[in-house]
Amino acid sequence: MNKVYLDYAAATPISTQVLKAMQPFFESNFYNPSALYLDAQSAKSSLTEARAEVANQLGCKSSEVLFVAGGTESDNLAINGIMQKFPGKNLVVSAIEHDAVLQPAEQYDCRIANVAQDAQVDLQDLQAKINDDTVLVSVMYANNEVGSIQPIKEIAKIIKNIRDTRLVEAERKSIDPLPLYFHTDACQATNYLSLLVNTLGVDLMTLNGGKIYGPKQSGILFVRTGVELKPQILGGGQERGFRSGTENIASAIGFATALNEAAEQRDTESNRLIALRDNMIDRLLRIDGLTINGSAHRLANNIHFTVAGYDNERLLMELDECGFMVATGSACSASSDEPSHVLKAMGIPDRDARSSVRLTLGRQTTENDIINFLKTLEQLVQ
Amino acid sequence: MNKVYLDYAAATPISTQVLKAMQPFFESNFYNPSALYLDAQSAKSSLTEARAEVANQLGCKSSEVLFVAGGTESDNLAINGIMQKFPGKNLVVSAIEHDAVLQPAEQYDCRIANVAQDAQVDLQDLQAKINDDTVLVSVMYANNEVGSIQPIKEIAKIIKNIRDTRLVEAERKSIDPLPLYFHTDACQATNYLSLLVNTLGVDLMTLNGGKIYGPKQSGILFVRTGVELKPQILGGGQERGFRSGTENIASAIGFATALNEAAEQRDTESNRLIALRDNMIDRLLRIDGLTINGSAHRLANNIHFTVAGYDNERLLMELDECGFMVATGSACSASSDEPSHVLKAMGIPDRDARSSVRLTLGRQTTENDIINFLKTLEQLVQ
Repeated sequence: MNKVYLDYAAATPISTQVLKAMQPFFESNFYNPSALYLDAQSAKSSLTEARAEVANQLGCKSSEVLFVAGGTESDNLAINGIMQKFPGKNLVVSAIEHDAVLQPAEQYDCRIANVAQDAQVDLQDLQAKINDDTVLVSVMYANNEVGSIQPIKEIAKIIKNIRDTRLVEAERKSIDPLPLYFHTDACQATNYLSLLVNTLGVDLMTLNGGKIYGPKQSGILFVRTGVELKPQILGGGQERGFRSGTENIASAIGFATALNEAAEQRDTESNRLIALRDNMIDRLLRIDGLTINGSAHRLANNIHFTVAGYDNERLLMELDECGFMVATGSACSASSDEPSHVLKAMGIPDRDARSSVRLTLGRQTTENDIINFLKTLEQLVQ
Repeated sequence: MNKVYLDYAAATPISTQVLKAMQPFFESNFYNPSALYLDAQSAKSSLTEARAEVANQLGCKSSEVLFVAGGTESDNLAINGIMQKFPGKNLVVSAIEHDAVLQPAEQYDCRIANVAQDAQVDLQDLQAKINDDTVLVSVMYANNEVGSIQPIKEIAKIIKNIRDTRLVEAERKSIDPLPLYFHTDACQATNYLSLLVNTLGVDLMTLNGGKIYGPKQSGILFVRTGVELKPQILGGGQERGFRSGTENIASAIGFATALNEAAEQRDTESNRLIALRDNMIDRLLRIDGLTINGSAHRLANNIHFTVAGYDNERLLMELDECGFMVATGSACSASSDEPSHVLKAMGIPDRDARSSVRLTLGRQTTENDIINFLKTLEQLVQ
């Protein structure tokens, strides 16, 4: 049976082009870029090029790109790095952040900004939660479960206004103003949305290779020049001292290639998937008792629905037997029988959360896959 | 020109067998092991098998093996994980630890145990530096610069005695004894020395795939059952909550395969390299003004020498032009013009440290390589 994969938000296969770009760095060009001989310096140049390519996609400087080992490490470095630099201060995060943001955040004085029923962050509440001791706001670019796209530019404007007020106040008092930084986890947004950090107005941004057809445990943290960050992994001083450890050049090259490929395909692939997605949503809504969760302003590849009365794990197993791989929620949480904190924050009752399914499309998804999936689902739930 | 690589301590090429084992997990079996459908569960089984293989090589339980992204992260997790669990307590490390141990250690009350001129840890000094508030001792299995092998079992005995005394004292007072854990960084030892954690008597052990013909930024931290550790990267709760982030199965499989291969070749490769090494040392000692640094009890693949009066960076460049890749010291330190802290601790004057060269042999090193290298070196320095 040829299986149909509909869980691209959980993991993506490495693209052939990415693997090809990585290959020379496994067996032959394997040198430690900190070594002084020419072959090692050439390996170092490849790393420098990969960093420049990533910077080019983000519209930032190369020195603002840190290669790290995955999205979770990147989120942790952003949160812990800032909060440990400013002990005793607080941060504001949205209620629907990934656990890779929420869990480090909860180690500090953490204020949670509410979201509406469509999983859009409540900007008034967000603004109200920021006080004179807030140094960091972290709101994800697009949610990993329900796909809702957050108003990053508007949040950046709110933050800029507060910064400006702090600056005036600090000048009046002849003191240094307390910084207020804006971090966004853009792991799920990378394939479909613009990543220009200056247009977005973010100070820190997390990207994850494992979600963009690149290698797993690859990723970057964008750190705007001037942002103060406490390094979390110390040692040889690689990545400008922010992430020590011999560089994984194959992985960095793989990440940069994947990001370039994502950028090249962004418009066409978004349009293709939006058509598939919207067609699918139309058909799904014809099923009795089925509701779509999340905002209309959602990722091109995301569909999230509840079929009242059906246990989602059982439905997942049945779909799996019929050859369709789907998710009951975020696959990133390794354990936990608890209903998703995202659906809870949206006001979805636990009962409905346990009847919810996430579909995420990707490069290999065809119109036929969608048609066959719908047929199977209709048979299973009607 | 066919170049000769003599810097295997800095980086190793990925072995063909390792790359072959990783291949299925790039493009096809790429699933997120936290997902519930069968193909993802099968990916999870592969991860479980890799963990069991590593545990088998260490003579420990699978649950005691944490996959992390490289040796530096592993060292940091051990040091920060323990020290943050016991705030206000102290740790003892040797003066010649890798920066991946030294730098995290220096964030706490850190006591440095001296080494002798041959880079062997002074056991009396080590014991004297441990006091009632010490919770961790970290001594590397074999040094990355001069290759000296440390008496791990003897250190474990010293620690066990102190633990026993604490236990008696605690029972007398009806309180819980303060733990005293023993961590070893075994990154350079893995290819050549036994890794049986119970025989060694260690509680935590760091291994690095990038030094054993496995993938870069792969590695493990062995954590003995019962050792209390504060996780450093939070999120989805992978690796039993100690290292969150979607697992890099390709990398874990690659690491396990590399470790198996290292174990298979350990005896024969050690003997082969010891013969090459000792022959080389004999020949080197005939060069005027050349001295060998470190202990006779050194790694099979390590040679470290000083040629008085020669600038080592210039010598490295000249050797590079003649087709030989060598190191002036640890390649892991990305920056720094400072003479090595290892050579300083051994009492080697800065002037001589700046005239020192490290050669590290490996699987591809032949007798011919050694003969040609010696010829070239003799021409350059005589």
